[in-house]
Amino acid sequence: MALPVRCTVKSVFRFIHESNSHRRLFKAGKATETTSLLKGQVFSGIQPTGVPHLGNYLGALESWVALQNEYSAVMYSIVDLHSITQPQGPHMLRDNILDMAASLLACGIDPTRSILFQQSQVSEHAELSWILGCLTSMPRLRHLPQWKMKSKQKNEGSVGLYTYPVLQAADILLYKSTHVPVGEDQIQHLELAQDLARIFNNQYGEFFPEPCALLSGTRKVKSLRDPSSKMSKSDPQKLATVFLTDTPDDIVLKIRRAVTDFTSEVTYEPESRPGVSNLVSMHAAVSGQSVEEVVRLTEGMDTGQYKNVVAEAIVQKLQPIRLEIQRLRADRGHLESLLAKGAEKARSLAAPVMTEVRKLVGFC
Amino acid sequence: MALPVRCTVKSVFRFIHESNSHRRLFKAGKATETTSLLKGQVFSGIQPTGVPHLGNYLGALESWVALQNEYSAVMYSIVDLHSITQPQGPHMLRDNILDMAASLLACGIDPTRSILFQQSQVSEHAELSWILGCLTSMPRLRHLPQWKMKSKQKNEGSVGLYTYPVLQAADILLYKSTHVPVGEDQIQHLELAQDLARIFNNQYGEFFPEPCALLSGTRKVKSLRDPSSKMSKSDPQKLATVFLTDTPDDIVLKIRRAVTDFTSEVTYEPESRPGVSNLVSMHAAVSGQSVEEVVRLTEGMDTGQYKNVVAEAIVQKLQPIRLEIQRLRADRGHLESLLAKGAEKARSLAAPVMTEVRKLVGFC
Repeated sequence: MALPVRCTVKSVFRFIHESNSHRRLFKAGKATETTSLLKGQVFSGIQPTGVPHLGNYLGALESWVALQNEYSAVMYSIVDLHSITQPQGPHMLRDNILDMAASLLACGIDPTRSILFQQSQVSEHAELSWILGCLTSMPRLRHLPQWKMKSKQKNEGSVGLYTYPVLQAADILLYKSTHVPVGEDQIQHLELAQDLARIFNNQYGEFFPEPCALLSGTRKVKSLRDPSSKMSKSDPQKLATVFLTDTPDDIVLKIRRAVTDFTSEVTYEPESRPGVSNLVSMHAAVSGQSVEEVVRLTEGMDTGQYKNVVAEAIVQKLQPIRLEIQRLRADRGHLESLLAKGAEKARSLAAPVMTEVRKLVGFC
Repeated sequence: MALPVRCTVKSVFRFIHESNSHRRLFKAGKATETTSLLKGQVFSGIQPTGVPHLGNYLGALESWVALQNEYSAVMYSIVDLHSITQPQGPHMLRDNILDMAASLLACGIDPTRSILFQQSQVSEHAELSWILGCLTSMPRLRHLPQWKMKSKQKNEGSVGLYTYPVLQAADILLYKSTHVPVGEDQIQHLELAQDLARIFNNQYGEFFPEPCALLSGTRKVKSLRDPSSKMSKSDPQKLATVFLTDTPDDIVLKIRRAVTDFTSEVTYEPESRPGVSNLVSMHAAVSGQSVEEVVRLTEGMDTGQYKNVVAEAIVQKLQPIRLEIQRLRADRGHLESLLAKGAEKARSLAAPVMTEVRKLVGFC
C-alpha cells in the first residue's frame, strides 16, 4: 500500500515523482522481488498509550509495515517523551511502552528492516529540540491543533504540551528524514518541521532536508457507537472501539452492537449512512478488497447478517496479531532487548548529526 | 568572602546555619588550613557573551572563586545553550565560549577544585529540561523577569527565550545542587528550580534537593557614564564599562572620565552622589577594604585626585587577570582540552542522575 506523498517544497518534489512511478510496481502493497527500494529516510512516531485499536492499525500501522517494503531506511519511534506532556503514572507508562513495542512487532514492524526504538533512550532528541526551540517564535505554536485542542480541555497546559511540535520536528530532522507518514491532523506539525529545516539551513548553511508528508490518514475508522466521531482509545463507551487484543468474542459482540440505521440493505453512503458505511469500509480494509467489491458481495444480506461477515473478517485479520502480542508480552526481557538494540542503532545515526549541528551552531 | 544564603524552604535551612557558623572561620575570603569544607553541591552558570567586565567580576566571579574554598563540590558552567536564545553568529559564539573559559580561569576558577564545563557538551541538560517542562505550566513562566524584559525589546521572543528558566532549573537539578550563587535578579528563576524539585519529588518520589540561593549580587557596580544604571557589556557608551582585558591606559582614561558631580569632596552617599559613591565602592571592592576605610584614606583629596587612586587600585587588581587571559587565549588547544575534561567530569555526574530520573518517570 503506497501512501500519497505531499510536499510543500520544490526541493523534495522529486520524491513524489519517484514514488509515483515506483508505486506502479507494487502489487497489493508488497514490493516485488525485482523492485529496488526507494531512497529516503522514513521516520514516524507513536505515543505509548497502550495497545492500539483497529483505527490506529488501518489508519497508520498497516501502512508503516508496508513502507518497510518501499523505502531503504525506515525508523519508528515510541515517543515516550511526548507522552509525558500529559500526566502519566510511571508503572503504567513502562507497561504501555512495552505493550506498544509488542503491538508494533505483532503488526509486522520488522526490526531487521526498520529501526524500532524508544525516543527517551536517545538524548539527542531533546538536545536538538532545544536548539530548534531557539529558532521558533512563540506565536508560531499558538495555533497548532494539539495545543488548541488539549489546552482547552485542561484550561492551561504544560510547557511540554505547548512545545511538543518542536520536539516532533527534532525527532524528524535528527535523522535527516525525508519522508514522514502522518495523518491529516498532523500536517501542520510537519509543516513546522519543514519551516525549521529551512530556518536552520538559512541561518547555519544547508544541512537538513525538508521532510515530505506521506499521507496515511486516508482510512478513517469511526466509533462503533457514534459513527460521527473517530474510533478512539479513550472513548468512554466500551463497545465503541476494537482493540488489537480483543478476543473473537469481544469483536463479534462489538460489531453486532455497532450503531447502524433502520434500512436493512448494505450500501456505502458515508454521508447519509455513516454507521453501515463504517462497517463496509472496515471490511474492505481488513479483507484487502475495494469498497465496491465488498458491497457487491453483500447482495441479498441485511445489516444484521452482514455484521457477522464483518466480524468474521476482522477476527481473521486481528487473530494472529492478538496471539503474537500475547506471545511477545509474556517475555519482557526480549522486548527490552529489542528496544535496546533499536536505541543503539538510532543513537549511531543521531550522534554524528548532532556533532555536525553543534559545530554549525558554534558550540564547538 | 562568604555569601549570604537564602532558602525559602525549611528542609534546607540547615545550610544557612552551617554556613553562618562556618563563615566566622574565614579570613579575607580564604579558608584557613584547619577549616573543613562545607558539604553541598554548588552550581552556577554564566553565558558566553565575551570577556566579563568589572561588574561581573566584583558582583559574581570573585565570589565564585571564593566558593571553591568553602564548599566540597563546585561546578561552573558556560551556558551556551542559554546564549542561543538570542541570535548568535557561530564563529562569534565559539570565540566567546573560549574567551569566557579563559576569563574564568584567569579570575581564579581552578579546574582541580571545581568542574568548569560547557553546558552543550552534556546532553542531559536538555533532556532533563524536557521532563521538567512537562511539569511546568505555561503561565508560570509568563511573569519571569527575563521574558518580560527581553521579549518586550524584541516584541515576541523565541520558545527558547520563554522556556529558558526551565533549562536553568535542569542545569541546577541535574547535579542535585544544593547551593546556587545568583544575583538578586535571578531569585525568581531559582524559585522555579525549587518549585520544580518539589513538583518532581511529589510526583515521582523524593529525589532532588531544593537548592538554596547564595546571594552574590550585593555589590552593584554602576556604569561610569550613567551611575543610575548597572555597568553593562552592551552599553553603547564605550567609556561606561571596564573590561577585564582593558589595558592600564584604558582603565585610567575610563575612570578619569567617570561621571561624578560638582562637589569636590569624596564621600559615600549612593542616593545623592551615585557617581563618586560608585568609585568608592569599586575602590573598596578591588582593594579588599571597607567603604569606611576607603573614605577615611581620601581625606584631603578632591575627586580628580581620587580618580587616579581608584584607577591605580583597579589596574593593580585587573593587571594579572588581563595578562593571564592573554596567555590563555593564545592557546586554544589548551582551553579546549580543559573544557573537554570538565565536560567529561560533568557527564560522569549527570549520567547516573538521569538514569535514575528515567527510571522514576517510567521510561525504563
